[in-house]
Amino acid sequence: MYLERINKPNDIKKIPKEGLPILAEEIREFLIETISDTGGHLAANLGAVELTMALHLMMDFPEDKLIFDVGHQSYTHKILTGRKSQFETLRKFHGLAGFPKTKESPCDAFDTGHSSTSVSAGLGLAMARTIQGKNNTIVSVIGDGSLTGGMAYEALNNAAKQETPFIIVLNDNKMSISENVGGVPSYLNQIRTAEKYQELKESVKNKLRNMPRGQNMIHGIQNVKSSFKQLMIPGMLFENLGLTYLGPVNGHDINALLKVLKDAKRLKTPVLVHVLTQKGKGYAPAERHPARFHGTEPFDVETGLPAKKRTTPNYTDIFSTVMCKLGESNPDVIAITAAMPDGTGLKRFRNMYPDRFFDVGIAEQHAVTFAAGLAAGGLRPVVAIYSSFLQRAYDQILHDVCIQKLPVVFAIDRAGLVGSDGETHQGIFDLSYLSSIPGMTIMAPKNKWELADMLRYAVKYDGPIALRYPRGQAYEGLYEKRPEIEYGKAEWIYDEDEICLVAVGSMVKNAEKVRSILMKNGHKVSIVNARFVKPFDEEAIRKAFANHKLVVTLEENVISGGFGENVREFTDTLGSDTILYNVAIPDCFVEQGKVDELLKELGMDETSIAQKIEELIQ
Amino acid sequence: MYLERINKPNDIKKIPKEGLPILAEEIREFLIETISDTGGHLAANLGAVELTMALHLMMDFPEDKLIFDVGHQSYTHKILTGRKSQFETLRKFHGLAGFPKTKESPCDAFDTGHSSTSVSAGLGLAMARTIQGKNNTIVSVIGDGSLTGGMAYEALNNAAKQETPFIIVLNDNKMSISENVGGVPSYLNQIRTAEKYQELKESVKNKLRNMPRGQNMIHGIQNVKSSFKQLMIPGMLFENLGLTYLGPVNGHDINALLKVLKDAKRLKTPVLVHVLTQKGKGYAPAERHPARFHGTEPFDVETGLPAKKRTTPNYTDIFSTVMCKLGESNPDVIAITAAMPDGTGLKRFRNMYPDRFFDVGIAEQHAVTFAAGLAAGGLRPVVAIYSSFLQRAYDQILHDVCIQKLPVVFAIDRAGLVGSDGETHQGIFDLSYLSSIPGMTIMAPKNKWELADMLRYAVKYDGPIALRYPRGQAYEGLYEKRPEIEYGKAEWIYDEDEICLVAVGSMVKNAEKVRSILMKNGHKVSIVNARFVKPFDEEAIRKAFANHKLVVTLEENVISGGFGENVREFTDTLGSDTILYNVAIPDCFVEQGKVDELLKELGMDETSIAQKIEELIQ
Repeated sequence: MYLERINKPNDIKKIPKEGLPILAEEIREFLIETISDTGGHLAANLGAVELTMALHLMMDFPEDKLIFDVGHQSYTHKILTGRKSQFETLRKFHGLAGFPKTKESPCDAFDTGHSSTSVSAGLGLAMARTIQGKNNTIVSVIGDGSLTGGMAYEALNNAAKQETPFIIVLNDNKMSISENVGGVPSYLNQIRTAEKYQELKESVKNKLRNMPRGQNMIHGIQNVKSSFKQLMIPGMLFENLGLTYLGPVNGHDINALLKVLKDAKRLKTPVLVHVLTQKGKGYAPAERHPARFHGTEPFDVETGLPAKKRTTPNYTDIFSTVMCKLGESNPDVIAITAAMPDGTGLKRFRNMYPDRFFDVGIAEQHAVTFAAGLAAGGLRPVVAIYSSFLQRAYDQILHDVCIQKLPVVFAIDRAGLVGSDGETHQGIFDLSYLSSIPGMTIMAPKNKWELADMLRYAVKYDGPIALRYPRGQAYEGLYEKRPEIEYGKAEWIYDEDEICLVAVGSMVKNAEKVRSILMKNGHKVSIVNARFVKPFDEEAIRKAFANHKLVVTLEENVISGGFGENVREFTDTLGSDTILYNVAIPDCFVEQGKVDELLKELGMDETSIAQKIEELIQ
Repeated sequence: MYLERINKPNDIKKIPKEGLPILAEEIREFLIETISDTGGHLAANLGAVELTMALHLMMDFPEDKLIFDVGHQSYTHKILTGRKSQFETLRKFHGLAGFPKTKESPCDAFDTGHSSTSVSAGLGLAMARTIQGKNNTIVSVIGDGSLTGGMAYEALNNAAKQETPFIIVLNDNKMSISENVGGVPSYLNQIRTAEKYQELKESVKNKLRNMPRGQNMIHGIQNVKSSFKQLMIPGMLFENLGLTYLGPVNGHDINALLKVLKDAKRLKTPVLVHVLTQKGKGYAPAERHPARFHGTEPFDVETGLPAKKRTTPNYTDIFSTVMCKLGESNPDVIAITAAMPDGTGLKRFRNMYPDRFFDVGIAEQHAVTFAAGLAAGGLRPVVAIYSSFLQRAYDQILHDVCIQKLPVVFAIDRAGLVGSDGETHQGIFDLSYLSSIPGMTIMAPKNKWELADMLRYAVKYDGPIALRYPRGQAYEGLYEKRPEIEYGKAEWIYDEDEICLVAVGSMVKNAEKVRSILMKNGHKVSIVNARFVKPFDEEAIRKAFANHKLVVTLEENVISGGFGENVREFTDTLGSDTILYNVAIPDCFVEQGKVDELLKELGMDETSIAQKIEELIQ
């Protein structure tokens, strides 16, 4: 067992050369075994084993800096830097993070989570190194999927003009989470194809050599213009951007990787090393279904099937079903995803209405403004993007959709606490950043039927409208409460007096639990399902204030700029003695853990809320 | 006068061919004459005269759709679509907008203002057209500067795989506002250089032709691989992205333009037409100083000098001076701009410390994460970006800077109302979107000395910190009030009782005027300079509530999630009878006009505020 000898950074350098392929296999076994138990990102990690090993053989930790784009492929790096024994706590509350964390290890150079940031961060570290007169090595590892994000291109454009050593490894597995789309992926595919540029180059050279004065022509062509030289090598796109390109190289051949990485290190300039890897490498089910094994729940190693079979639908399933129905009944409905046809549930829509489905790549900004264009052209685009990723399109929502009041529907999945992905993925800011934008309408459903009703409502609404719903199992309670959606109107689920809970979306379920506790203590408790966060129902709030001693808002969003604060701005004008208390996420980033654990930590579980209410009502 | 014959859309088609160059000259004269009087974007408009004319000759308005990236180069389009007579109101309150506005004319297809959105919007319109079975023409005009913005690349990548007619005109003047930077601009420069690709291609072909079997080789090479074919044509970068490339063509030759545009229209696929133009063309001062004539104040046509000489410094000047001093005293200070070395005042820093200055292009996202990398590497980057443009980096501030608590300084110029640029440029959201982010510190100075003190404070602070200051003349009042900056502490400028005005940054000046009015009416009025918006000074607010009947917050920011709302969330826990009133921008986009006019319109001028306070104090 070579893996046993890996207990701290740089231990890999003591493994004999012939042991390296064996170590790679052991790491794969460890990853499959561990992740089958804990869940996590499997396929990308299996693909990056040899690449990470080669990087560790070339680099010294923690002096050298390695940045993983997105970061879900950093498990081998964590193993090689002494964190193997912590893997049983992977992605758990207070456990090992599923992404790089500077606070977890000095060998993690930069926190990542969202896509396409690694070249920017790496270039910053490289320039800081150069300005300070140091000479450590900086490497950013970026996937071909992340290269569809515009920010990566901004960084490549900027890197091209810096004369400083900086290695960008393009980890090219033809996938982001799903298959890649667009011009650059096609371009990469050309490089990858059997009849490689390298061979072509040789064949052209040979042809020329065999011709009279051919050798002179080769020489001539190679020297006439630097750009013409690029014709002779692969990676013209990157060379055109001004970057030196090396590769492509087999990403599962440690020796080949080491050679090209050492070449890259010798060049004292930004270099792009093109590495070809296979997502899911070494585990047949993941090789066959890389998207399913991108982020996986615990599974059976033998069969690759989920350990627990899901029996109830989640919100994404409901969204998926209703979108397919809407696609049929309304020819104007268009679906847009930013590289997440599986995650957002739009795969079925794509299969049924391929001409009205657009996967734009990991490009949230373009997704939103493209939707604005479709809406300006008379259609009803539905942009499905996770809450935390939509942060990247704040300006486009404001500038391209809302100023023109265009009818774009934002289907915001993973809104609220998301659990094990941690800080970077919590969808706890959308109510704030969307509420700040004039003309935006924001809805949140209490249960699965309301999600369906709201989506149907949204595609008919003539203006920007957002629908935010949480990750995971769809709430099936309150199925008997299904009054029609009316613009800006809340729903009175229980209409009593004394205490009124005004809950947003997922918090209606929690409000019911709080109500049960309070009722046992003899209180009378109303529940209002806010439905609309913006504009919220002033009439309902007025009534709540008129008939209750205490009104409590509940939302899975940060306090600043959220529902509760906006309600308070209004209620302070009512001149009422009723107390308003806002339950919301305090001003902090929220780490990984089960949603229930996190709510408890934040004082937002039913017991904590009920207790706080008891204090206030005294 | 051909210009007199242009009174409605498509009138240009009636101008005889030989009259077109004369019309171009007349338009130029009109632009110079008008803008010298009103101020506005001159240089870019002078560069785009023939291009816009050629587009209008090829297109039918309003059926066809023309989208201008950023939009400041749309003046000729406005002239050609019947808005000539409105130019005397250009950029004025309720006047003609300086940018395209769909509500102004059906010939404006999409509102623009921020950079790099046009390809996304145009592609959306093109796909909507195709889905609806129409066949009108869609053209997006994007500058080479805008092409440094990542979102443009996301759109090009997505456009490449759509089989739909769509013309992207690359208006290449080697400039954004200042000179362009990075790999792509260098690449474009290669295409432009004297020894053109086209000539090179011919020369290689000729050489091959003269060789035995050479013709076969040409044929062979051209057919072996489509990518090899690209070696023979310019625009490989775009061809590599999967777009058909036409050009480069002289952008001041209407016939040449018409020919290439008609070619582009015949190709039923996304096409990039590369047009070379000169910024400032036809007006010598603007040709010599295109950056100064990008957005200009009224000027003297003869000399090109500003009509009014500026006698007092603006906030940008102060920032510029202090940055140079900090650069000298602190070798860790780095300056970053997103294509605005002039606008942000960083040009002097660049000249003094070129190794610690980075212009990353129109790339706000990369600017912020690059700064995060520099900070992680131990330096103190100062990122200077206008408030409304920083919206584009909301996710990067949150995800790359604040989660890791990195010491990045955000110097946010043009915060608050900016005036004549209108809706897209108002910096009225930053307090909201920054306040929503845990760990962010936000400051705003009351006058020019405080800006200097705060900037010095910020580069020493060990965490993310933002400094927001308005456009225009720096306030020089209250120079005698200069207590040291203390973290999270407000400043009591006047400490009385009855009414307390708690003002953020620029609103301190207005608070003084409000106080004068109220004092005349016999009131006693305190003024607190908030200094810190986040975290705000709870102790000062507590004292304000203890000693006054009415507390008024004042900020140039939208109400939702702003300073006032956050203060209210706190003060409602105080159990005080003191009334809190929040003066902030209501939930609407704010159009163009002088800042004073806009404040009045919004009920935020001193008279309106004083009147409201009189009502509340009763």
